[in-house]
Amino acid sequence: MATNKLTGKKLLITGAAGFTGRHACEYFAKQGCDVVAVARHVSALEDMPGIKPWGCQLDHQTQVEEMIRHTRPDYVLHLAGKNSASESWHKPASYMESNVMASVYLLEAMRKHRPDAGIVIAGSRLSIDPAKGAAAAPHPYSLSKTFGSWVATAWHAMYGLPVILAEPSNLIGPGESAGFCTLLAGYVVGCEQGKSLPMFRISSRHESRDFLDVRDAVAAYAVLLAEGTPGRTYPISSGSEHTLGEIAAKLLAEAKVDVPMDWGPESAPLSADALNKGRSGDQVGSLDTLGWQPRIPFEQSLSDIMEYARRKTGMDDTGRP
Amino acid sequence: MATNKLTGKKLLITGAAGFTGRHACEYFAKQGCDVVAVARHVSALEDMPGIKPWGCQLDHQTQVEEMIRHTRPDYVLHLAGKNSASESWHKPASYMESNVMASVYLLEAMRKHRPDAGIVIAGSRLSIDPAKGAAAAPHPYSLSKTFGSWVATAWHAMYGLPVILAEPSNLIGPGESAGFCTLLAGYVVGCEQGKSLPMFRISSRHESRDFLDVRDAVAAYAVLLAEGTPGRTYPISSGSEHTLGEIAAKLLAEAKVDVPMDWGPESAPLSADALNKGRSGDQVGSLDTLGWQPRIPFEQSLSDIMEYARRKTGMDDTGRP
Repeated sequence: MATNKLTGKKLLITGAAGFTGRHACEYFAKQGCDVVAVARHVSALEDMPGIKPWGCQLDHQTQVEEMIRHTRPDYVLHLAGKNSASESWHKPASYMESNVMASVYLLEAMRKHRPDAGIVIAGSRLSIDPAKGAAAAPHPYSLSKTFGSWVATAWHAMYGLPVILAEPSNLIGPGESAGFCTLLAGYVVGCEQGKSLPMFRISSRHESRDFLDVRDAVAAYAVLLAEGTPGRTYPISSGSEHTLGEIAAKLLAEAKVDVPMDWGPESAPLSADALNKGRSGDQVGSLDTLGWQPRIPFEQSLSDIMEYARRKTGMDDTGRP
Repeated sequence: MATNKLTGKKLLITGAAGFTGRHACEYFAKQGCDVVAVARHVSALEDMPGIKPWGCQLDHQTQVEEMIRHTRPDYVLHLAGKNSASESWHKPASYMESNVMASVYLLEAMRKHRPDAGIVIAGSRLSIDPAKGAAAAPHPYSLSKTFGSWVATAWHAMYGLPVILAEPSNLIGPGESAGFCTLLAGYVVGCEQGKSLPMFRISSRHESRDFLDVRDAVAAYAVLLAEGTPGRTYPISSGSEHTLGEIAAKLLAEAKVDVPMDWGPESAPLSADALNKGRSGDQVGSLDTLGWQPRIPFEQSLSDIMEYARRKTGMDDTGRP
């Protein structure tokens, strides 16, 4: 297996306390990696077994350099960043610091101390096609992820750093996520518990997105760290889209009670992923040819999300506390 | 005259102690503007008459916000930034902080405190065409100016701030510049004084560039502040190119002594400005239609550069101390 190459190696994972980061730490620790898990506050890493916690504010250059100088990782998986489009309207500078400057500081520290170590940076399929110009940026989050993806590509092109850009689609699965599936599952479980909640509203139920299980994405990151080609951009997707309305129907079908729902306006079908069908100038790589395929069926992801939501609120899977 | 609109208004100029900034402060003070001149250290502004000095590190968000909250300018001319391609290789993070984050902090402060005030941001014709992808970035300076230009455009598109992006060609003229003409004039004057200097070498004498007098550029900024259309990108150029070899010949013709010169290799003609012939997605505006034209002949610029170099070293224009 290609990822055996990583066994025994020191892998530094940023954003380790986040939704994807927690899955990544668990996966790579099980693979026998020496995982350095990085979060802003080490307290967020306390419940995670088999990792070495490291506290670092990635938007502080001196802290980042100190971290790399001290840990000297063989590989880096850079998952940290801010990822709420709505929040980004209110804090665009903070999004630029976290999604652009943090990458710059990390790459600069690697260039200085570990220039040969492989780096995978998680971008976003919401970055925009630069050929459309900055005026096409739908929100500051998208602009910041676009800059971040440029930094990843440019540090390979300009300095020869072995950087790979991964662009996952919408990641879902068990764990603390601010994504649609997790939010709705929490709402459904709340209704099962008889809580009085404001009605969940779907803004655009015909909106279609590519959803991928976070555990499949982590397996893809492992393949890219072991076998990816530096300088390339790798889209990571399930290859099939689902509408928000379809997901809502599936989650509601698992509910033990009637769940009230605001289905929102009847609107024309649209694909949110139309934003990014590959950017001009990118050297795009294929995960297929590296042997990666998504393995977790969509229904399994949804079921695991419901189970997580119930477990979190102390209910078993019969819907009773 | 269109720029009468600016008389009596408070204009904040960043990078005020720099090559263009000094000319801009002088020009706008003479126009009757209430000029707030911003530099990292106020000591750099001590010899400048008719301005209000303000010290600010523009890559520190709190300092920038404090400055705008306190000064509340009617207009902003943002000239500050780092501009050495060669230096940028060694300090890319610092170039990103100065050329990208400083603009973000400034625009955010304006959005909060003076959202209707007109802003002109000086970009660079060395920014790259995003359609070519980040891998086309020739150096970190170019990447940082590309991001900076995107920030200017995006803050207009996303937040409706009245931001105009100005993209001047190579600015020349009297004053402290790190540009080719000023460096060569200093060398010529040094030779006139009998100094022992390493021979000046022209790396590519057939390289052709559009040179514009800095005083013409400042007049263009005035027109843009008064009459430019927010959200547009305005190229500012003389419209004619000169080769480095031609400039060297003209400056050497003004020398009072024989000046030794390494003319470099015979190489194919090339245009450095080929990099940026307008980027995809930009809304490009025309200064012609606003009544601006370059006024200072190229020979006058060169002559003023020589005069400045002689004055600086205490010689009169006969070439004698």
